[in-house]
Amino acid sequence: MNANVIDASALQGIVTLAPFHRWLGIVVDRMDEEGVELSMPWREDIASDSEAQSIHGGILIALVDLVADQAIAAKLGRALPTVDLRTDFHRPAPRGRLRGRGSVVQAERSVITADAWIYDEGGALVASGRGVYFNRQGA
Amino acid sequence: MNANVIDASALQGIVTLAPFHRWLGIVVDRMDEEGVELSMPWREDIASDSEAQSIHGGILIALVDLVADQAIAAKLGRALPTVDLRTDFHRPAPRGRLRGRGSVVQAERSVITADAWIYDEGGALVASGRGVYFNRQGA
Amino acid sequence: MNANVIDASALQGIVTLAPFHRWLGIVVDRMDEEGVELSMPWREDIASDSEAQSIHGGILIALVDLVADQAIAAKLGRALPTVDLRTDFHRPAPRGRLRGRGSVVQAERSVITADAWIYDEGGALVASGRGVYFNRQGA
Amino acid sequence: MNANVIDASALQGIVTLAPFHRWLGIVVDRMDEEGVELSMPWREDIASDSEAQSIHGGILIALVDLVADQAIAAKLGRALPTVDLRTDFHRPAPRGRLRGRGSVVQAERSVITADAWIYDEGGALVASGRGVYFNRQGA
Repeated sequence: MNANVIDASALQGIVTLAPFHRWLGIVVDRMDEEGVELSMPWREDIASDSEAQSIHGGILIALVDLVADQAIAAKLGRALPTVDLRTDFHRPAPRGRLRGRGSVVQAERSVITADAWIYDEGGALVASGRGVYFNRQGA
Repeated sequence: MNANVIDASALQGIVTLAPFHRWLGIVVDRMDEEGVELSMPWREDIASDSEAQSIHGGILIALVDLVADQAIAAKLGRALPTVDLRTDFHRPAPRGRLRGRGSVVQAERSVITADAWIYDEGGALVASGRGVYFNRQGA
Repeated sequence: MNANVIDASALQGIVTLAPFHRWLGIVVDRMDEEGVELSMPWREDIASDSEAQSIHGGILIALVDLVADQAIAAKLGRALPTVDLRTDFHRPAPRGRLRGRGSVVQAERSVITADAWIYDEGGALVASGRGVYFNRQGA
Repeated sequence: MNANVIDASALQGIVTLAPFHRWLGIVVDRMDEEGVELSMPWREDIASDSEAQSIHGGILIALVDLVADQAIAAKLGRALPTVDLRTDFHRPAPRGRLRGRGSVVQAERSVITADAWIYDEGGALVASGRGVYFNRQGA
């Protein structure tokens, strides 16, 4: 896979442009040739149950999408519009910090594929998925 | 498809249990044998761009998931955990109210499939998708 | 949705170009503004079980893909390469003729979405799915 | 991930039960704790084009499904019915032998997730995907 064209600080700048990312509190923790790592804090508003013990699946999917897209942004210098996204849920996500890892599968075409894995605070895989993104300037 | 087992007011009660649904402001607008219709208001926090002109894809996906799940809740009296979800994005969603329609594809097994379509305020289809949900009490 | 640009006989010609379609015995039964209908016969080689009572899931998925793609071919005059495909299985498909219906969801972009539904000889829905196809000559 | 409960020879026996697998000529090449490797030969009937230079996408998807399912069979001693499957196409598959690698993502529930990657004879990734399978005897 190609090298990254921006650093973690520039990627954080791209992430923070979106008001929804600011509301979620998305932080770029790390990036290398293999991909990116982002995390987000717990807040009561993202709960799925009345006792606020678990995180809503919609939040997990949103995180899969944005983590996969930021893995692309690290390679291209900009996030791309999502064409479609699949997410699988592996277990309930308890309240606490979420960590996401994203990685580009192939970026040689005008349609780019990227994967993402979401872990709970204890390190268990709670969701994972794949997005396809459209690169107007691609081949 | 089986008849609904609850009415719109009871469905609204189920929807409102989740803090994330309250934050989104989800309203049950209508339900009949064919499915359910829900809507949610615009707010600046769901924007994807710095000028807050369009709605974040993560919000659209979350809406696909919850609309599909509520179509199941109308039939079974309870929402179910999502196994996996696919969402396709058809065009950017401009700021404004979103409306979602959900419909159960088949509910005869322990794995239930439901579809959802999301429309912008002008009535254009902005996203659509399909979720698979697990019914522990199913066949 | 735009009108069809070819008729059923021309579509049959496109379908028959692929050796795999010839092996499957794909027939174009009908096409109108809403979409296309194709069918294929039973043969022992497509069975999934040693008693040859049911059709292999891989055949159902292949049919979802080609039916969705031919719905596009009816609109554009040519089939397109598949970007990704999701298929859901609703019930086992008994030996016998399969019938597929395909319909384009949106075709205004360089990435085109189409749906397909596969029915067994008795008319029961056995599988359904959605493909995304790349239109190099699109917007 | 749990250990395998059968060996490659027993897995080949399971694979060969399906007439469609026999027609495809599926061979179990290798299995270890990480997953399984299967391959299949070229034949003219699987071509997508009139010059028979490339392999039909429907064959690639069928292979993704069966490779993922056999990764489960290695762990459980039996293949499971597919609930849904997503496949992404990364590049055209030239005529020649195809090799597939499958791996179980999580198997602790009654719904099991497995991934598969398909490579052409030169070792290039031509397709990859994920299936969800139903384990009636699961949790």
